[in-house]
Amino acid sequence: METNKSDKERLDKQFAFARELDKEKLIGRQTYLANGERKENDAEHAWHMAIMALILSEYANEEIDVLRTISMILIHDVVEIDAGDTYAYDENGKKSQREREVKAAERLFGMLPKDQAVKFRNLWEEFEAQETKEAKFARTMDNIQPVVLNDASDGKSWVEHGVHLSQILNRNKNTAKGSEVIWNYAKENFIDENVRKGNIIND
Amino acid sequence: METNKSDKERLDKQFAFARELDKEKLIGRQTYLANGERKENDAEHAWHMAIMALILSEYANEEIDVLRTISMILIHDVVEIDAGDTYAYDENGKKSQREREVKAAERLFGMLPKDQAVKFRNLWEEFEAQETKEAKFARTMDNIQPVVLNDASDGKSWVEHGVHLSQILNRNKNTAKGSEVIWNYAKENFIDENVRKGNIIND
Repeated sequence: METNKSDKERLDKQFAFARELDKEKLIGRQTYLANGERKENDAEHAWHMAIMALILSEYANEEIDVLRTISMILIHDVVEIDAGDTYAYDENGKKSQREREVKAAERLFGMLPKDQAVKFRNLWEEFEAQETKEAKFARTMDNIQPVVLNDASDGKSWVEHGVHLSQILNRNKNTAKGSEVIWNYAKENFIDENVRKGNIIND
Repeated sequence: METNKSDKERLDKQFAFARELDKEKLIGRQTYLANGERKENDAEHAWHMAIMALILSEYANEEIDVLRTISMILIHDVVEIDAGDTYAYDENGKKSQREREVKAAERLFGMLPKDQAVKFRNLWEEFEAQETKEAKFARTMDNIQPVVLNDASDGKSWVEHGVHLSQILNRNKNTAKGSEVIWNYAKENFIDENVRKGNIIND
């Protein structure tokens, strides 16, 4: 059975997008894998966050739509294919981040058929705006996943960057908005513990 | 606010599992990234499949529960942390695959709190059994995602392994069970095209 013409046009766009997405595997992050062997990339980070959301959604402050949350998580870093990863503690990079990412969102989600281009662009904007409960929980995962890895690698990335506790607390000022339970647990078991070990500078 | 004791026991298990999952980023596959630079790993593959499911679910033969499908996709290769990746065309490895993977599922999903251990083990078994429409569509993604990458890298992995068309068709004998539209499209645009180019041996 041959693919009909209107299906083919739509599928061409969807598969071109799927192929373009592959580049997210080349966008490096600052966080090391648990064994400290190498740093992780955006695709691995998004996968890890998505499973964590699946396992931990019961702790969301308000009941969340898990599919919506996971969809947001899966696509939240797609813009970095064009805009690159901006390290959480890179204050200069963060200034131009929004402009670079909006341009990227236009090009990348724009590859999809119109209805999906709008849908996924909106989902990304929802994540960025941090207003809905799903966006807040997705951000909680985005902030906590690297904390888990940093703790597992004995604070390797924190130590390399000489990160201070105040920077981590500032970076995590919205983590509890998605889940107080998860934030409290992570603070006690990962962050305070690494302050005690000297992996995070107590300022 | 301190985490209460029963929450802490549950969270300890969930975070231990989340940390263990990180090892999936170290499980290599035979498929090259689109640019041919290196092979991808299981975590990247699962992330890529999950977004593809999000974009392509409209083509499922029957309407599917997308969250269920994506959950299955996200965890379908977790067992390879212990059992390793078995290449699609490695006939010897495939003989012991089921036994190795069941043992891995027991250990890995067993790290979770009991209710979740059962839930995710069942989800993995559902994927393996290939009976539900969600499992069939997840398998379609599992089969098509590497085809997209192989096509993008000019058949690099097919050429390296001297793969024959009959092997690909056999490997994909169930791909259409999740989505005929996607299978027809992939057959025409990726597989037949690479036979024409000589990247797949026509037997």
